[in-house]
Amino acid sequence: MQIHFCTRTGRRNKGDAMKNYLSLSRAELEKLLLQLETEYSEWQGRKLKLDMSRGKPAPSQLDLCSGLLDAMPDFHAADGTDCRNYGVLGGIPELRALFADLLGLDPERILAAGNSSLNLMYDVVTQLMLFGIGGNAPWCRAEKLKFLCPVPGYDRHFRITQDFGFELIPVPLRQDGPDMETVEQLVGNDPAVKGIWCVPLYSNPSGVCYSEATVRRLGAMKCAAPDFRIFWDNAYGVHHLYEPTPLADIFAACAAGGNPNRAFYFFSTSKITYPGAGVAMLAAGPDDFKEIMRRLGTQIISYDKMNQLRTVRFLKNAAGVRALMAKHAEALRPKFEIVARTLADELAGSGLGEWSDPRGGYFVSFNTLPGCAKETVRLAAEAGVKMTGAGATWPHGVDPADRNIRIAPTYPSKEELATAMKLFTLCVKLAAVRKLLAGER
Amino acid sequence: MQIHFCTRTGRRNKGDAMKNYLSLSRAELEKLLLQLETEYSEWQGRKLKLDMSRGKPAPSQLDLCSGLLDAMPDFHAADGTDCRNYGVLGGIPELRALFADLLGLDPERILAAGNSSLNLMYDVVTQLMLFGIGGNAPWCRAEKLKFLCPVPGYDRHFRITQDFGFELIPVPLRQDGPDMETVEQLVGNDPAVKGIWCVPLYSNPSGVCYSEATVRRLGAMKCAAPDFRIFWDNAYGVHHLYEPTPLADIFAACAAGGNPNRAFYFFSTSKITYPGAGVAMLAAGPDDFKEIMRRLGTQIISYDKMNQLRTVRFLKNAAGVRALMAKHAEALRPKFEIVARTLADELAGSGLGEWSDPRGGYFVSFNTLPGCAKETVRLAAEAGVKMTGAGATWPHGVDPADRNIRIAPTYPSKEELATAMKLFTLCVKLAAVRKLLAGER
Repeated sequence: MQIHFCTRTGRRNKGDAMKNYLSLSRAELEKLLLQLETEYSEWQGRKLKLDMSRGKPAPSQLDLCSGLLDAMPDFHAADGTDCRNYGVLGGIPELRALFADLLGLDPERILAAGNSSLNLMYDVVTQLMLFGIGGNAPWCRAEKLKFLCPVPGYDRHFRITQDFGFELIPVPLRQDGPDMETVEQLVGNDPAVKGIWCVPLYSNPSGVCYSEATVRRLGAMKCAAPDFRIFWDNAYGVHHLYEPTPLADIFAACAAGGNPNRAFYFFSTSKITYPGAGVAMLAAGPDDFKEIMRRLGTQIISYDKMNQLRTVRFLKNAAGVRALMAKHAEALRPKFEIVARTLADELAGSGLGEWSDPRGGYFVSFNTLPGCAKETVRLAAEAGVKMTGAGATWPHGVDPADRNIRIAPTYPSKEELATAMKLFTLCVKLAAVRKLLAGER
Repeated sequence: MQIHFCTRTGRRNKGDAMKNYLSLSRAELEKLLLQLETEYSEWQGRKLKLDMSRGKPAPSQLDLCSGLLDAMPDFHAADGTDCRNYGVLGGIPELRALFADLLGLDPERILAAGNSSLNLMYDVVTQLMLFGIGGNAPWCRAEKLKFLCPVPGYDRHFRITQDFGFELIPVPLRQDGPDMETVEQLVGNDPAVKGIWCVPLYSNPSGVCYSEATVRRLGAMKCAAPDFRIFWDNAYGVHHLYEPTPLADIFAACAAGGNPNRAFYFFSTSKITYPGAGVAMLAAGPDDFKEIMRRLGTQIISYDKMNQLRTVRFLKNAAGVRALMAKHAEALRPKFEIVARTLADELAGSGLGEWSDPRGGYFVSFNTLPGCAKETVRLAAEAGVKMTGAGATWPHGVDPADRNIRIAPTYPSKEELATAMKLFTLCVKLAAVRKLLAGER
């Protein structure tokens, strides 16, 4: 597995260069182990209780949206719709227009839905399982189903296709997106390969952004399955920490490749306004959108238009979203910098780990020495810091090299985060030194 | 098809008893036809535009809940949960407790979900289609699937099972619920019969309430399919127009019959607070609930807890719900009485129709002479009054006798409703007289 290596924060900021642990003698390692174990015991005595396991915004970020708690003076959409009552399956036009403007999409092919884009993804997969798409057989009738999972990736994506019985095929994520040689080979020859999970901007957890060339190849590649679909979860589409990273238009790429219905595009305001009470969005190719919406008309009468109205009134327009995201970035940058600095100070040059340097999104991806991720996470948990379970970033929760750990720095306060990261790096070292000594035996 | 006949409103309030149209001579009918056609032409000239097609509360009813538009001073659930953020799949405890108290259910087997109970029903059916339940094979693997549809019934229920390819079997609805002789025979012999749609209180559209004996038999009957399930949509569970009608406990009935996992219970605040922005509820048997929730954990992280909090704060408790429903009833009673009075005045004794006398819910069920429902609805539409499509209350939208029409009196104002009902009765007569004359030819 390849992650977007840190070069910028790879320098240590204090004192001399750290000696590479891999070149230490057994005696040196044993001495070090004693020090690390003493230090770890001290941490255990501190009875910490910190949760860094999920990518949740901090309460202070949510406070940026307190306008959503204000009284609603009126409950009519711009076209006069009484948002309290039934109706308007596709969502209110002004919110669809906002999404379209913000993301460069066609408002006629946008659904503004409920509070969960994950639920929309699940619903689309169930539709394809039970009904198929574009006149193809329902996926549930296939003997064998496979789904491509760029790794490291998002556990909740993988879990959907796992539950539906897909074989999950890990595909290495490179600096510019999934390894397209591998992807093209897999989709080109095997009609059982039905889709790929993509988080194209600031991928969870590596922070990788898909290049224009990657997007073009995804749209143009030959697929053995006519019903192959890209699940394009642009969850962090406006979640820049520094200057915005551009993202090529997946629908344009698919259309240019002669595959106008290849992509389902998901987005939500979950990490713009409130994670639990945002509005999710689906966009799709022209035929697919009609087909999905027709079936959705059996599933639900309408989503919560009051929350849609509340959301669009608070955000106002695309510029309003960008202004809000700048405030989120201001809150998050110091946290990401604490992570980067602590990792550099404690581990740069040690040979014990490598980590990503994300320019947006919610996560930092960390690789331990092979076989040390689970133990590192266990050690952190026993000293009171809960990380995302090791392996979570791989299909079925099993990282074959037992290396990858997702660091989610957003929820804790800066002080808590600094403490947690310090402990984390200690656990990385302790697990690694024990492993190195065990390996020498 | 049998509906809950009106006897109470079957008397005419004005003048002499109406002559039964069925006993008129051809000459009398022809004379009458001319009169009716002249009257109808006059109505057409009035350019009405009224929609009585769906069971939507009137804006004045929704105004009863303007407290939901107030500012939210705080966003923490009673247990301290920050409702803005991710988490709490099952919904906030205080709302689950309210539902439990209101409906006599176990709060541990209650999910407080999103804004649509129809969506929950759809989700449960998809789970059973794709995964099965209780260790039984997924429904989608069956050669043949059948679902029982008490008629007249709710089109949106029927449409779910229709889309999934079930054969929809109409079962007559009697004054005390579905014809249990028929139901028991159908479920007892055929493992393809997987479920039944039930609206046990004030059934849509007939207003029928299931008796205790019916509920007991549903819980106890022998089913050839071990995964037979009752979809118990108690949509109108607190929607009494007059004194409350009691409803027996379906879970107790199922448990007593040795089938503790037979029922899925649905409810929502859609017609308590806002149809588009309420909170839907699911309850299930002990094993089923665990199984459904486990799979739901793949589908969604959490439903909109902010709206759950808003809802429970506004409703307060079960007594608060009942007090609000008394106000809804006050708003609705005059409307149902306009329908009853107009039907009695214009049609009692005519032999041209029969209709229900609901004590709650949102609808009146009307039966024309055989073969006259579609034409009656068409005539009303052409004069500017949109009714629910004839046939909608039957599976696949086809009423074999072409008799049943659903009257939805809640949305229009009293004045509009009086006008619409007057026109409706004219259309009933016009369609009937034409039919009678054609039949004599």
